[in-house]
Amino acid sequence: MLRTHTCGELRSAQIGLEVTLCGWVDSYRDHGGGLFVDLRDRYGKTQVVFSPESGAAVQEASRGLRCEDVIKVRGTINARPEGTVNPKLITGEIELRCVELEILNKCKTPPFLPTQQDLPGEDLRLKHRYLDLRRPVMQETLLLRSRIIKMMRDYFEEHQFIDVETPILGRSTPEGARDYLVPSRVHHGQFYALPQSPQLYKQILMMAGYDRYVQVARCFRDEDLRADRQPEFTQLDVEMAFVDKDDVIGIIDGLVQKTAKELKGIDVQLPLPQMTFDEAMERYGHDAPDLRFGMELIDATDLAAESDFRVFKSVAEAGNRVRGINAKGAADKYSRRLIDELTEFVSNDFGAKGLAWFKVEADGKLASPIAKNFSEELLAKFKERYDAEPGDFILIVADKFSVTCKALYALRKRLGAELKLYDPSEMHFSWIVEFPMFDHDEEEDRWVAMHHPFTAPRAQDLEHLESDPGKCRAIAYDLVINGSEAGGGTIRIHDNKIQQKVFGLLGMSEEDAKERFGFLLDALQYGAPPHGGIALGIDRWVMLFGGLDNIRDCIAFPKTQRAADLMTDAPGEVDRKQLEELAIKVLRQDELKK
Amino acid sequence: MLRTHTCGELRSAQIGLEVTLCGWVDSYRDHGGGLFVDLRDRYGKTQVVFSPESGAAVQEASRGLRCEDVIKVRGTINARPEGTVNPKLITGEIELRCVELEILNKCKTPPFLPTQQDLPGEDLRLKHRYLDLRRPVMQETLLLRSRIIKMMRDYFEEHQFIDVETPILGRSTPEGARDYLVPSRVHHGQFYALPQSPQLYKQILMMAGYDRYVQVARCFRDEDLRADRQPEFTQLDVEMAFVDKDDVIGIIDGLVQKTAKELKGIDVQLPLPQMTFDEAMERYGHDAPDLRFGMELIDATDLAAESDFRVFKSVAEAGNRVRGINAKGAADKYSRRLIDELTEFVSNDFGAKGLAWFKVEADGKLASPIAKNFSEELLAKFKERYDAEPGDFILIVADKFSVTCKALYALRKRLGAELKLYDPSEMHFSWIVEFPMFDHDEEEDRWVAMHHPFTAPRAQDLEHLESDPGKCRAIAYDLVINGSEAGGGTIRIHDNKIQQKVFGLLGMSEEDAKERFGFLLDALQYGAPPHGGIALGIDRWVMLFGGLDNIRDCIAFPKTQRAADLMTDAPGEVDRKQLEELAIKVLRQDELKK
Repeated sequence: MLRTHTCGELRSAQIGLEVTLCGWVDSYRDHGGGLFVDLRDRYGKTQVVFSPESGAAVQEASRGLRCEDVIKVRGTINARPEGTVNPKLITGEIELRCVELEILNKCKTPPFLPTQQDLPGEDLRLKHRYLDLRRPVMQETLLLRSRIIKMMRDYFEEHQFIDVETPILGRSTPEGARDYLVPSRVHHGQFYALPQSPQLYKQILMMAGYDRYVQVARCFRDEDLRADRQPEFTQLDVEMAFVDKDDVIGIIDGLVQKTAKELKGIDVQLPLPQMTFDEAMERYGHDAPDLRFGMELIDATDLAAESDFRVFKSVAEAGNRVRGINAKGAADKYSRRLIDELTEFVSNDFGAKGLAWFKVEADGKLASPIAKNFSEELLAKFKERYDAEPGDFILIVADKFSVTCKALYALRKRLGAELKLYDPSEMHFSWIVEFPMFDHDEEEDRWVAMHHPFTAPRAQDLEHLESDPGKCRAIAYDLVINGSEAGGGTIRIHDNKIQQKVFGLLGMSEEDAKERFGFLLDALQYGAPPHGGIALGIDRWVMLFGGLDNIRDCIAFPKTQRAADLMTDAPGEVDRKQLEELAIKVLRQDELKK
Repeated sequence: MLRTHTCGELRSAQIGLEVTLCGWVDSYRDHGGGLFVDLRDRYGKTQVVFSPESGAAVQEASRGLRCEDVIKVRGTINARPEGTVNPKLITGEIELRCVELEILNKCKTPPFLPTQQDLPGEDLRLKHRYLDLRRPVMQETLLLRSRIIKMMRDYFEEHQFIDVETPILGRSTPEGARDYLVPSRVHHGQFYALPQSPQLYKQILMMAGYDRYVQVARCFRDEDLRADRQPEFTQLDVEMAFVDKDDVIGIIDGLVQKTAKELKGIDVQLPLPQMTFDEAMERYGHDAPDLRFGMELIDATDLAAESDFRVFKSVAEAGNRVRGINAKGAADKYSRRLIDELTEFVSNDFGAKGLAWFKVEADGKLASPIAKNFSEELLAKFKERYDAEPGDFILIVADKFSVTCKALYALRKRLGAELKLYDPSEMHFSWIVEFPMFDHDEEEDRWVAMHHPFTAPRAQDLEHLESDPGKCRAIAYDLVINGSEAGGGTIRIHDNKIQQKVFGLLGMSEEDAKERFGFLLDALQYGAPPHGGIALGIDRWVMLFGGLDNIRDCIAFPKTQRAADLMTDAPGEVDRKQLEELAIKVLRQDELKK
């Protein structure tokens, strides 16, 4: 035993006790007569005093201490002298008077201190992750992560779910994202793929009668990395047999309620609200709307058609949409310059051809460069439609439906934050349901699965499956927290014929489907129960419950946007012998297909 | 909601209740007037009765039911008629009288039935794993696995361990087993490696101040597969800071006690017994001895030296060893033919040049083909040394120490089982400690790490580190259950200089060490606490606590010995486009280096 206590547990009750502590030198202050060290470990900090009573040798040694040195100290717990009690520290009433000091590991001058005020650059933090992970906020986040996952596991165990591990070395069935591949040494020329999710394994488990499955599963996607994506990520993976949508939603509702209560003290009313995909697109322009504030999208296509404004008119006549939002009371917060910025924002980033706007003046008049194209009567209708009051700022986009969605969703999000329309510590949970089964890929002119090819259509939509796939709605449900997709699931197809039909709609030939998903098509004929499930993004949950805005801060050893681990220098070159055994060769630049 | 209850929860208390059940047709019996179906799910079986009361249509439909069909039945719970109560079934007092039947999924004639008595061939089981996993013993095993892992997680959480996920996409640092490699698309010509264990990440976490870490971690080794190895396996991975060997052992002792009690009702006395590596090799010839029975190895080199038996004499004179075991009372169980078999066993499989034996006759005489080479006096000494009594059977191997270990360990194991020297349901837990730091690889004439290169030598052995590496003992400890290594750990080096020295001894140049482990060598200079840990083999634990003898039966979706998944057909070929993006090419047979 190197220590008798941790640095977070000594109190007045231990005064007089001889103890041994170990930890890092968090800070030190030389007060002439003695040296005061705050000794730190994961559990807290304890003040250690080196004074003449420590003995000459110990005092002398203590003078060499620097921040982040790892030391072991023996001594007696004393009450701090009057006036020096530190109420901010849980151990602030006591101090350890050191009589024996051992330096367990001397710290070289580090590239940055975990205790420093200003955050070092992210690359430096990632390279020296052992220092970065000592920062209190990182420790709190990883503790929170551990706690969230434990809470989830406890919850699912209480509900009789079985935790089953599914393989990491699987079969490549590219669909959606790119697979990470692993060459096989035993089977030359063949590859394993890392799972994008355990989707088919969990469905197989339902067919094998496991009834309720849960796993905290590592998933892999070789995507072009966006700010909030990692090559590997963790999801809470759930599947249930003999259920419909509301059974799955009910289980997750309970988890949300428990987590919100235990982690944030928030009382969540159940059931969580549900909104259809179509309604979400109509009211918020997005399938993961932030419902902590209003400022909904309001359609004015009919009014625009009546105006003399050429742009509005032609958009309306083409069957496209004129929609807008009303930023209540924000008129004087957006100058011409800022409005130009917003215009650029929606046109550069979201493809809108322009941004129309109205400001409501004190007398109720609508001021706008385009106001002259509207009759008084029409302006009145506009005001009514947008519930316009003096001081309001109305922003309008006229375009294809999808462009109005993207642009107005982005505007609403930006203005919501800029105008502080919500309390960032508040949390809002809801479900978006009834997603389309398919998206139409315009470029390749083919249908793609909106969730994945194993999603069941609603019974009443089965008839449209072939005649009008775009009309078909899936039994799908996404959990949305504060405008982020925090999970998504579906009821799965458990009928071989429907599964084959969907594969066909997605452009797979019968052979192709058999080659890739033959085992699933087989299993569906050997006693497959109705089943469905969901996956929750754990990195995202940690981010949301931790109030963080960088996904890399929620992961102990994340990768950069270029998919590199700066600490271990992965990926890296490997010995030629390793590649020879795998029978693969790296192509030189000039051998690459252009 | 598809069902109101599961098939395992209805009892007499529910008589009269209308319920809906879903499940698989486990069996059916047509009794003329009606059809009796045992409906099965994970929770149990319930008898469903189709009779004229069910209505003509339902009864008609029920006649088509076959095993493994998935059905939904509605009806009323009735008491079973007198004399038909089934006390073996938890629901055996009641039956469901069906009035509505829905066939949710019809089962084609399956390649085998999960309920059949004789076990199908393993390849067939693996190909149709969804059927195989329905077998009751497989369900029990995976439930046990889930329970063991949950129990471990609960235990470590109670002891303030933090569950931290470490990366699967890491850096290749080949040492020991082969790495599985993953080509990077972003960094052409570079590769990630799947972790053989999270060893360095967990050490980094200790240096980052996390103090107590736990993870149920997936590990990967591209080895030539032995019967009990899988390309991917799961370990309970633990690391602790500011600890010595007994702290780590103490934590695991507690886990063993709790697991044995909760799963098997066994009271384990703590602390678990510890034995040094040297003692284990001397007494059992192996570092993971089965301590459920005696029959220890007994040395007789000194006596052999006095004999006239040329083989014994020369072995003793060469400084090698003559050792044996006494199979008490087994003399008449081993005929000449069986002894010949044992002789072949130790020579073919374990390199022994022969097997000498003595049988103790009723009058106390030692009968043996070689007895003539021993004086009466010497025979008496032999008898005393081996505690030989009439009916005993003594087997002796004379060879190099390592050969006597292997051969006698194997003999002891085989005879222990054949002679039923232990109760297979009994469990024995112990620690083997003080392993050598290094093994000498005779072929390559170099030192290799017995555990791994991060293992700390005992303080008192530091002086031998360079002068006599073979003498150096590590602070290492293996948990042994019933003669299987169920876990292994060490205290790690936390001193940069010692770490460099060990790398050097293992034949790594300074540059090489820096290239591969630079981040570790750095971290060791920025405040690294003393630390150590352990990893427990979860697949092995499930096997031992489940009383199973095939590791593939402990895993939901295992791979074959050729590392293939027969259900999904992994590994498989991939599209040329995928390889082009990765800038790699598969070599043809004729391009492979011979």
